[in-house]
Amino acid sequence: MGTSSNFYVVFLTIVVLATTTFATYFPRPTHQNQFVLKQSKKPQKPYKSHYFPQQLDHFTFTPESSKIFYQKYLVNDTYWEKKAPIFVYTGNEGSIEWFADNTGLMFDIAPKFKALLVFIEHRYYGESLPFGKNSYKSAKSLGYLNSQQALADFAVLIRSLKQNLSSEESPVVVFGGSYGGNGVMTRSLSVSPAVLAAWFRMKYPHITIGALASSAPILQFDEITPWSAFYDAVSQDFKEASLNCYEVIKGSWVELEAMKSQKGGLAELSRIFRSCKVLQSADSARDWLWTAFVYTPMVNYPTEANFMMPLPAYPVEEMCKIIDDFPPGATKLVRAFAAASLYYNYTGTEKCFDIENGTDDHGSDDGWGWQACTELIMPMTCSNESMFTPSTFDYKGVTEYCVKKYGVMPRPHWITTEFGGERIYHVLKRSGSNIIFSNGMQDPWSRGSVLKNISSSIVALVTEKGAHHLDFRSATKDDPKWLIEQRRQEVEIIQGWIDEYNADLRCKGGKTE
Amino acid sequence: MGTSSNFYVVFLTIVVLATTTFATYFPRPTHQNQFVLKQSKKPQKPYKSHYFPQQLDHFTFTPESSKIFYQKYLVNDTYWEKKAPIFVYTGNEGSIEWFADNTGLMFDIAPKFKALLVFIEHRYYGESLPFGKNSYKSAKSLGYLNSQQALADFAVLIRSLKQNLSSEESPVVVFGGSYGGNGVMTRSLSVSPAVLAAWFRMKYPHITIGALASSAPILQFDEITPWSAFYDAVSQDFKEASLNCYEVIKGSWVELEAMKSQKGGLAELSRIFRSCKVLQSADSARDWLWTAFVYTPMVNYPTEANFMMPLPAYPVEEMCKIIDDFPPGATKLVRAFAAASLYYNYTGTEKCFDIENGTDDHGSDDGWGWQACTELIMPMTCSNESMFTPSTFDYKGVTEYCVKKYGVMPRPHWITTEFGGERIYHVLKRSGSNIIFSNGMQDPWSRGSVLKNISSSIVALVTEKGAHHLDFRSATKDDPKWLIEQRRQEVEIIQGWIDEYNADLRCKGGKTE
Repeated sequence: MGTSSNFYVVFLTIVVLATTTFATYFPRPTHQNQFVLKQSKKPQKPYKSHYFPQQLDHFTFTPESSKIFYQKYLVNDTYWEKKAPIFVYTGNEGSIEWFADNTGLMFDIAPKFKALLVFIEHRYYGESLPFGKNSYKSAKSLGYLNSQQALADFAVLIRSLKQNLSSEESPVVVFGGSYGGNGVMTRSLSVSPAVLAAWFRMKYPHITIGALASSAPILQFDEITPWSAFYDAVSQDFKEASLNCYEVIKGSWVELEAMKSQKGGLAELSRIFRSCKVLQSADSARDWLWTAFVYTPMVNYPTEANFMMPLPAYPVEEMCKIIDDFPPGATKLVRAFAAASLYYNYTGTEKCFDIENGTDDHGSDDGWGWQACTELIMPMTCSNESMFTPSTFDYKGVTEYCVKKYGVMPRPHWITTEFGGERIYHVLKRSGSNIIFSNGMQDPWSRGSVLKNISSSIVALVTEKGAHHLDFRSATKDDPKWLIEQRRQEVEIIQGWIDEYNADLRCKGGKTE
Repeated sequence: MGTSSNFYVVFLTIVVLATTTFATYFPRPTHQNQFVLKQSKKPQKPYKSHYFPQQLDHFTFTPESSKIFYQKYLVNDTYWEKKAPIFVYTGNEGSIEWFADNTGLMFDIAPKFKALLVFIEHRYYGESLPFGKNSYKSAKSLGYLNSQQALADFAVLIRSLKQNLSSEESPVVVFGGSYGGNGVMTRSLSVSPAVLAAWFRMKYPHITIGALASSAPILQFDEITPWSAFYDAVSQDFKEASLNCYEVIKGSWVELEAMKSQKGGLAELSRIFRSCKVLQSADSARDWLWTAFVYTPMVNYPTEANFMMPLPAYPVEEMCKIIDDFPPGATKLVRAFAAASLYYNYTGTEKCFDIENGTDDHGSDDGWGWQACTELIMPMTCSNESMFTPSTFDYKGVTEYCVKKYGVMPRPHWITTEFGGERIYHVLKRSGSNIIFSNGMQDPWSRGSVLKNISSSIVALVTEKGAHHLDFRSATKDDPKWLIEQRRQEVEIIQGWIDEYNADLRCKGGKTE
């Protein structure tokens, strides 16, 4: 590390790690998940499980294509009145219960709308495995895992469900913007469902009347958003908190790198990082730091929260206070460690850190590694202005890795061919409607999302102090006014879609209208 | 035949015939194509052939999916100025030269727009065979033939072409509405490209700024349009010309059926039908009549034309005159034959009719049979009010046939799940733009198309006296005023799309806008 030319090594590391740990979107995935609180196995929200016979391949008619697998979906009909709206959560890379348990917004607003709540599991995750235990075996079995098939799954299932409920006229609103409220969060949870919800409205406007896409970086593909935007935004969060803080973190990587070649360096590093065991590699310490500094801006919430990890209000500012208030004479690395410790040990319960062992509760990373190697190519770099080591993006290296690992060639331009993105403000203004893109500017993912209104019905709800899809969490008594207002606007807009739909319905002149 | 319960036999016949002849959309496909004038092999329009390395399967990442085949496309740059519009013809079931030669409208209007003309061949037709000679061998090879893959082909090719031309900002307009101007026409030519053009604008608004879809029955699927609409429209055309004419044709089928069991019936039928050889089956005579009465309303043009066959102006009226003016005492069958002869022998050159031998110049029927057995299920029936033998639609029978023939199960609800159609007036009003649906009400296909304006930019251009995509033919000095006006409106609307696009382009604020 240290030169920009070898960044593809970093990317490869990410993808490699992605197959065994749960952080892949970031140039610095980590082994930090042992610090993540375990998800409760007991469902926290009321719903019933169902299984839908889904078709393997919607877009070919080969003999293999008609194979059926069972797609899991959860239903809550506590507030449901026939013909009332159906709210559908477009699931993503993980067990669907996880998302249902952590999308409090849908449960909070369901009574007002008398809505049926449906959470659809994404194919190849949770129990929805087309080839059972062999689903991740090879490109032959994994080949049917992609966003277009997932969207088609949603369309087929929703249509069938409405028919079975004899409620074909119910308007369907899709929600995407997930997270693990129990302190678990993966890279995929941060982006995919929101993106899927937006794309679903764009591609299937006849199935859903609108989409609420919270923190959806639909412009993070191809060359639409500058590749350095994500890490520049991370750095900006720290710089705004304190210029010194930003500079300390920026300088810490060189110090860490220097210890690699230093005699007794690993022992010293283990001491500094309060590692429970002597570190085998300096890279794990680097990843540990990296993760703390990348994830914390995402959850830079204005209140104490336990989103990914228990953290105080405005944790970025708190980290910077630790750095700025440090006794004189301490190295940058020591200060950076102390700041990062806030992320891993805000509760103060950790006596030492188990830096090199990672597990993933959700066991879906093979699927995510596959998606990152096929269609969901989001090039990211670190510019000289970022607080991370500068790096470039080497597509050739990524391709070589993916061919070797999965026997598959990435299709880096496919997402923008299929879903667009370039000139999106003009394209969607002319041909789309009814999407809310909600974002918090503290969240670095916001840079790849839609931050300005596109039209009167494709709107951007941006909060300066908000972070990663905070709006989707259950309401609490401590919510700041601007968050309450954001959710109020969301409800109002959704109500508007429903009213419009019902008005259209009343004046229909026939089956085709 | 004769009872409504066995209509699925008729449908099966259609599909069977579709694999060896070229008429499948109709409940009565025929062997009549030996009467069709042969297509000139010499290109009639100026263009150059190109071949694009296209991917077999855009929607999976299995090892097979990345196989490359060469997709043919034709380019005319006679009038092209860089950054000017690109007009793309979305090819369909046949060799692309055939469509290019017969889409005079695009050549006629290209100079005004300084447009580049591109005609893209549909996969599995013409030279664009993914598995070469084995493309039609089995469901394994045919499996990749469907409309979604075709649309993705168009999207990928257009994007690549614009990049290669360094003309990424050129607006793309798609055209669909084909025919064989040399007197050749197939069932597929009548509907598919127009439908594809409309769907392409709906699904890929980021690739094309608008679509001109001439005679696009996008509502002919599932249960949107009444299944009897097509044949009711055919019957209506005849009824409007003459009630007696309608009744004579309606009565002729029973007479024909009666001859089956009559001693010497086939010999008598051969005599009535002036068959060159003694008929082996009465069914071929029935099909021969059926075809004439179904195709003629489609081409019920106000001027003499050689569209499918050489025909006089208002051929339906001419047919009815033959029936009405017949000397007293003639049977209904004899009158019906005489009327149908107009279709096959307007020029008077046929001394006898070769009713039982059929060939297809274009050799693509296996592909069409496949598409009719997989996604493009357009249920059609004949009501008691139609002038044909009443019939129902038996999905079970169709399924059994398709499973036996191709080893494939039809997916009758897939098209409406993927592309919508129900409530289209409300759905597209809220989420679409820039489509012209042009139709002539003489054309029975118009009943499954969009006949009313959906919004200010999704408009229906309907001519009462027009027939099947007359607007796409080359302008001639004999064109009636209303046709000239229809084309003028089309040009004006397309110009409006381009102006709007250019205005958007000028005020863009960045790569994403």
